[in-house]
Amino acid sequence: MTQQASIAALNERVAAVNDVLNATSVLTWDSRTMMPPGGAETRGQQIATLTRVARDLLLSSETEAALGNAERAIESLPDDAPERRIVAQTRHAFEHHRRVPASLIQERAALRTVAQAAWIEGRAKSDFSIFAPHLARTVELSRAYADCIGWSEHPYDAMVSIYEPGETASSLKRLFATLRSSMQPILDAARSRPAPRSDFLFREFPEEGQRAFGLSMAEKLGYDLKRGRLDTTVHPFEVSFTRNDVRITTRYNRNYLPASLFGTAHETGHGLYEQGVDPAYTRTTLATDLVGLYAVGGTSFGAHESQSRLWENHVVRSRTFWQLHFPELQRHFPDQLGDVSAEEFYRAVTRVEPGFIRVEADELTYDFHIMLRVDIECALMDGSLPVADLPAAWNAAIKRDLGLDVPNDSKGVLQDVHWSTGYIGSFPTYTIGNVMAAQVMETLRRQDVGLDAAVDAGDYAGLADALRGKIWQHGRRFMRDELLVRETGRGLDPAPYLAYLQGKYAS
Amino acid sequence: MTQQASIAALNERVAAVNDVLNATSVLTWDSRTMMPPGGAETRGQQIATLTRVARDLLLSSETEAALGNAERAIESLPDDAPERRIVAQTRHAFEHHRRVPASLIQERAALRTVAQAAWIEGRAKSDFSIFAPHLARTVELSRAYADCIGWSEHPYDAMVSIYEPGETASSLKRLFATLRSSMQPILDAARSRPAPRSDFLFREFPEEGQRAFGLSMAEKLGYDLKRGRLDTTVHPFEVSFTRNDVRITTRYNRNYLPASLFGTAHETGHGLYEQGVDPAYTRTTLATDLVGLYAVGGTSFGAHESQSRLWENHVVRSRTFWQLHFPELQRHFPDQLGDVSAEEFYRAVTRVEPGFIRVEADELTYDFHIMLRVDIECALMDGSLPVADLPAAWNAAIKRDLGLDVPNDSKGVLQDVHWSTGYIGSFPTYTIGNVMAAQVMETLRRQDVGLDAAVDAGDYAGLADALRGKIWQHGRRFMRDELLVRETGRGLDPAPYLAYLQGKYAS
Repeated sequence: MTQQASIAALNERVAAVNDVLNATSVLTWDSRTMMPPGGAETRGQQIATLTRVARDLLLSSETEAALGNAERAIESLPDDAPERRIVAQTRHAFEHHRRVPASLIQERAALRTVAQAAWIEGRAKSDFSIFAPHLARTVELSRAYADCIGWSEHPYDAMVSIYEPGETASSLKRLFATLRSSMQPILDAARSRPAPRSDFLFREFPEEGQRAFGLSMAEKLGYDLKRGRLDTTVHPFEVSFTRNDVRITTRYNRNYLPASLFGTAHETGHGLYEQGVDPAYTRTTLATDLVGLYAVGGTSFGAHESQSRLWENHVVRSRTFWQLHFPELQRHFPDQLGDVSAEEFYRAVTRVEPGFIRVEADELTYDFHIMLRVDIECALMDGSLPVADLPAAWNAAIKRDLGLDVPNDSKGVLQDVHWSTGYIGSFPTYTIGNVMAAQVMETLRRQDVGLDAAVDAGDYAGLADALRGKIWQHGRRFMRDELLVRETGRGLDPAPYLAYLQGKYAS
Repeated sequence: MTQQASIAALNERVAAVNDVLNATSVLTWDSRTMMPPGGAETRGQQIATLTRVARDLLLSSETEAALGNAERAIESLPDDAPERRIVAQTRHAFEHHRRVPASLIQERAALRTVAQAAWIEGRAKSDFSIFAPHLARTVELSRAYADCIGWSEHPYDAMVSIYEPGETASSLKRLFATLRSSMQPILDAARSRPAPRSDFLFREFPEEGQRAFGLSMAEKLGYDLKRGRLDTTVHPFEVSFTRNDVRITTRYNRNYLPASLFGTAHETGHGLYEQGVDPAYTRTTLATDLVGLYAVGGTSFGAHESQSRLWENHVVRSRTFWQLHFPELQRHFPDQLGDVSAEEFYRAVTRVEPGFIRVEADELTYDFHIMLRVDIECALMDGSLPVADLPAAWNAAIKRDLGLDVPNDSKGVLQDVHWSTGYIGSFPTYTIGNVMAAQVMETLRRQDVGLDAAVDAGDYAGLADALRGKIWQHGRRFMRDELLVRETGRGLDPAPYLAYLQGKYAS
């Protein structure tokens, strides 16, 4: 077989895996936006079967043979050839899945069903003891999973590698120490200032107006509706079924306008990343997370979050955005926002107000919620924190970081769905996204002095072009830090994020 | 392995096939209702991959072994045990697919892509010669396919067996001869009467009112929206992803009210069938067309069509339905229908008006369109009609049956999408559905003398219960004629249909 044919044969195997994973994503999207309630049970079975089929296709003897041929075929290619990365990533995923026995996958899937039910009941009753035994089992199975994948320093490293390859328990510890020490004074300063007026955010905002403004905003930012759509859901998300069908969702809270505004901006950022992946990568390893068995073009969860945060916080949650676009929002809601100025609106949506709930947190306190969770995940994985002590550890951290007394476990340790789904290790990616967003923006501003002026004038095409060139188009060709080194000259660096927070929230 | 375990092991294999086929259906539904235009190309690849995966799962050595074990396990079961049917149907499908080589499947798939493009172009230009070579190749590949499956009397028999097992070229010839000889006088009588007033059907009917009435009607007829939903599409269809998620679609023509009214009633009938399948059959062979590789609970295309036609024509296209519900329709459209009586409305929607286009045909002339196509399909398959002579044969039949001169091929031989998709043999099921609907209704009326009175009073629950008991719940456990013999005492019989048409259209 020629070099080209060998690589094509491997690509064809991966394309089938990608098709199945994209199908899985369609079924998930449908279940969260369109599906009538009756469909839930069999939909779960359909998704489980497709996930198993994708793994079986990846681990099949045909894929293994194609992989071996491709490995021999690329030997003569230059080091930076995309084909090398395709083959290496496919091999990495193949070995990853080969190390995890099907029995462990089944055990985790079975646990998820009962753990989720217990979590729902526990949260409703605010009783951690209902969920605790299932969480303990989740930790056990996660350790078994980590042992299969392999790790050297800390079992958490294996789990994080699924979502954010390159990060480890110790790298996160260093990052968080830097963030905490610099963010605490900013938070103290912000809390010492009088709270701005925000009553108008809680008025009655009919869904139609929220949707119309959100759609118009998404298009302004560059989201292509010929390759996407905006729907309503309970927990907003973005999902792609190749770069040419990238869907975003949002939730309309009639009595709290920012939820859909910034939620839509956030998902638009995710969507722009996926819509911007090189068309040549469609259905290849470079647009498929073969380790996580998820059809996605973004190179890591953190890199993905960097793009959603960039558009949500650096662009839309900015003074100049509302100076420009608040009149349009007022036209949709003349009665509700007639007595509000653009500056008042900006101050309201950037007010700092420590609270118990992560998903309701402001930009400044959000990372404290994340760091708390990551600390706990590490301690659960290495056994230094018994599950029974988790609520006390949680509440102490909230008291220390935010000065709040957690009233009950529903507003504390039971608030997030993540652990009940059996997964540990994805939380760090939220904060990594925040850090990376600021680092990328700082570089772009340095390299193109006209960029800020264009964005301030409501022209977002230049920013989108720059991000497409630096990040989106590459899909999964480069690992996150490879991409950062290429485009910003260094690996993940918290300094620009801290400078950004300082400028926005300390004065 | 115990008997139970052997059957369970086979069921588990089939359940995975069913999951994949249901996933395929979700992707198809999405592509016809929700998908942005950009998604079309990769969606086609995703659907093709899932279909291949389903076939591979069915033909896998694991399924073959499970099938062998199950065959040995059922030997001691009674003849009418559902397990016997599960095993026999799975074996039948297994052998069917084993006989068709993957190369032929690929060739048909490749042809479909070019044939559809040629058909679209040919229809736009009303030039049959553009499509003709692709149709000729379609016929060749269909013959090769028929030869793989096997047939004794006529190659068409193999094709029909995919959609309507039990029917053959010769059984259809007999059926059509009976229908033609009795329906022609009814048609002549209908055409000799003056046309009723129908101008009001073509007024401006906003979509919201059509949708509201359609949804209300579907629920009246028994369609369960907790296990379904109604969406908008270009070519209306019903599709199920197990009995607990059965979706219908319709199209709103602002200037022709009957399209959505009777279209929605039609798809509701299909939906009722699927929602009514025994829950115990979920994800089994008895709710999966393993030959057609389509996740469906109805036992044949014709049986399915019988239920859609029954609700569309026997219930909704009836005088008493509009005597009861026309006031509700008027409330949605007071300006458009204020000057119309229920009787005028009924007469307008049952007017007989021969035309060129099948999908616009009235109830009485519809079957003539079908019989024409089936005659042509038979003649193409046995080689007695060269493709080049097709337009002339088509136009002569339209002249003979409906007295019309076909003005061009777009309004004649090029009007339907079916042949361009590479499939031949599904057309008979439309007429079989009409015949079966009347046969079932006649039996129900004979067995339950109160049924008509209840339906005439707007109470459709008794009819739905009867149909669920006789037909829907059985899923694919019985073949169509087995079901008819069980429930009506005889196989497919055109007499009740002819009596029904006589009563409705001859006087």
